[in-house]
Amino acid sequence: MAEWVFRGVTADPGRVHTEGRMVRAALEDARDQVAALFAVRPRQVVLTSGGTEAVNAAVWGVLAPAGRGAPVACAAVEHSAVRDASARLGTVIDVAVDRLGRITAAAVTAALERSLAEHSRLPALVHCQSANHEVGTLQDVADVVGLCRERGVVVHVDAVAAAGHVPLDLESLGADLVSVSAHKLGGPAGMGALIVRRGLRIDPLLVGGEQERGRRAGLEDVAGAIGFGAAAAVLAEPGRIDAEAAAARRRTDHLLHAATTVDAVHPYGDPDRRVPHIVCLGIDGVEAEPVLLGLDQAGVAVHSGSSCSSESLEPSPVLEAMGVDGERSLRLSVGWSTTDGDVEAFAAAFPGVVGRLRGLRS
Amino acid sequence: MAEWVFRGVTADPGRVHTEGRMVRAALEDARDQVAALFAVRPRQVVLTSGGTEAVNAAVWGVLAPAGRGAPVACAAVEHSAVRDASARLGTVIDVAVDRLGRITAAAVTAALERSLAEHSRLPALVHCQSANHEVGTLQDVADVVGLCRERGVVVHVDAVAAAGHVPLDLESLGADLVSVSAHKLGGPAGMGALIVRRGLRIDPLLVGGEQERGRRAGLEDVAGAIGFGAAAAVLAEPGRIDAEAAAARRRTDHLLHAATTVDAVHPYGDPDRRVPHIVCLGIDGVEAEPVLLGLDQAGVAVHSGSSCSSESLEPSPVLEAMGVDGERSLRLSVGWSTTDGDVEAFAAAFPGVVGRLRGLRS
Repeated sequence: MAEWVFRGVTADPGRVHTEGRMVRAALEDARDQVAALFAVRPRQVVLTSGGTEAVNAAVWGVLAPAGRGAPVACAAVEHSAVRDASARLGTVIDVAVDRLGRITAAAVTAALERSLAEHSRLPALVHCQSANHEVGTLQDVADVVGLCRERGVVVHVDAVAAAGHVPLDLESLGADLVSVSAHKLGGPAGMGALIVRRGLRIDPLLVGGEQERGRRAGLEDVAGAIGFGAAAAVLAEPGRIDAEAAAARRRTDHLLHAATTVDAVHPYGDPDRRVPHIVCLGIDGVEAEPVLLGLDQAGVAVHSGSSCSSESLEPSPVLEAMGVDGERSLRLSVGWSTTDGDVEAFAAAFPGVVGRLRGLRS
Repeated sequence: MAEWVFRGVTADPGRVHTEGRMVRAALEDARDQVAALFAVRPRQVVLTSGGTEAVNAAVWGVLAPAGRGAPVACAAVEHSAVRDASARLGTVIDVAVDRLGRITAAAVTAALERSLAEHSRLPALVHCQSANHEVGTLQDVADVVGLCRERGVVVHVDAVAAAGHVPLDLESLGADLVSVSAHKLGGPAGMGALIVRRGLRIDPLLVGGEQERGRRAGLEDVAGAIGFGAAAAVLAEPGRIDAEAAAARRRTDHLLHAATTVDAVHPYGDPDRRVPHIVCLGIDGVEAEPVLLGLDQAGVAVHSGSSCSSESLEPSPVLEAMGVDGERSLRLSVGWSTTDGDVEAFAAAFPGVVGRLRGLRS
């Protein structure tokens, strides 16, 4: 990607001149790499400016033709992009979750029944994330997709938190729409994809050009696509995701162990069935933000809050939906660049940071 | 930009840890550079994934709260993104243009009156491009913006074709919304901006995060922004745009002269009041596409068709609106990387290419 940017090639891949065709070839090679990672055909891949655009495009693509106010089944643990995009176009029917943040096929079935009872129709769209972005819980996404397909309901899977971290065979999954983000799996920020089931037609969110087979107007971000493709190609190497997942799991287990040796620190989400790279903590008696700042001084970057955009002061809708104590969480994640030394640094710093903050309060 | 990509920094600029704040600083530096080029405040700049997204966001931002079917004044010479985004949300009121593709204040006034007569209200939105993307005609955008502001009508300026090629003082212009694209002025593909007048509130097209002051959700494409900022900074150097414009004008005058020495080749658009880097030709008796392919063999890349996405076989809506003969055009454009040698190559090849094609037909 850096090489491409450095070369400064900016021809339009929609043009038939030599320069245009060269850029087209680079773009399609990148699309092939993304498609291969998810076991779909290249033409199913609509490149977007990120996971948020992919989610917005999925929701618009289905709800714009369905008409305003159409029922949408959506759990409160879905990402804010899924919830907000759905709420502005449709009528949200809540899918209940348990204390681990799990979306079950039974809860989705109940939402379908409620839609029939309250709206005399099945939802125009059902959402089921593949994993929760905040607490890491893996969802029974295959079961949910299966039941939706059986009843002819369009289903969107927000796979942003899971893609690249657990194997995703989207061809077998059979979901209508799947959103993924490049930067969550080692690719560049500002790039993602909406993966569309063969035969499904959706209204484009961005109009005014025939790019991406008429599904997304606008000159393509070829450099970003190349970066996405390169990351996807690495992850598609045989055994690669499993090896990265094992390393991530070992590190997050270590983080979890180190954190929970401190009194009144407890994990949120499913401790076993979770994406390997995320753990989420509640810390009694202190706010997440000063913990974050204390850890930052020790060279450890962690997340607080649930929003993808800022260290929001609002209570976390995910924790609220799970019905657990605690308004805010501390999210620890590891990636391909995380070292054992980073994990050690957290383990060394965390007890002291929490202890000092609790000392100030008492 | 290449250096940033090579370093692989991907922290979220919305986070308060050290890495997040470093990325935030880089992003805001880039925004400052873009703002400075257009003489606006940084907070007015909403970074987008390109001109098409900026246009779609402008139209959605005004028409979503105005309600479906609200009248929108839009000339048929506007870019397809402007036309398509407007037509799907509003009721388009045509703004007439003349044979040079000019949008006049008088024609916009007539459209406002027609809106009052037919819809009992002024349009919710008026579009006026700063220059035409296909024939290069510069519009009387200051007059149009002035009359809209006077009558309290929200006005959007598609400045994609003009930005970076003619000086644009958006603070003085006073338009409510202005769309620009990075790749049209030497920056990267997949990056652009919507510039929002101070005090104007718009509904975000992409929802689910508070990025860009709540006006565009999604993790920011920091690398793209850095590329956009770098290009903007070069163009903001004193005298730079004037110097580039003079060089471009000299080269396009040369192209025009060389082309029109061939029999029955005529320029479209305003021959004088045009952006310096674009000329547009009609060639009697031959299609544009084989000319394009013939020039490509001579190492010259030109455009055919009006669509931004492909060498469309549809007649050009721009030429149609201008009421000129000819369904398709050949667009020649020069940029910062164009040399006099490139211009010579065109001048040497063009007569032969057209002559051979006409020979085949006769």
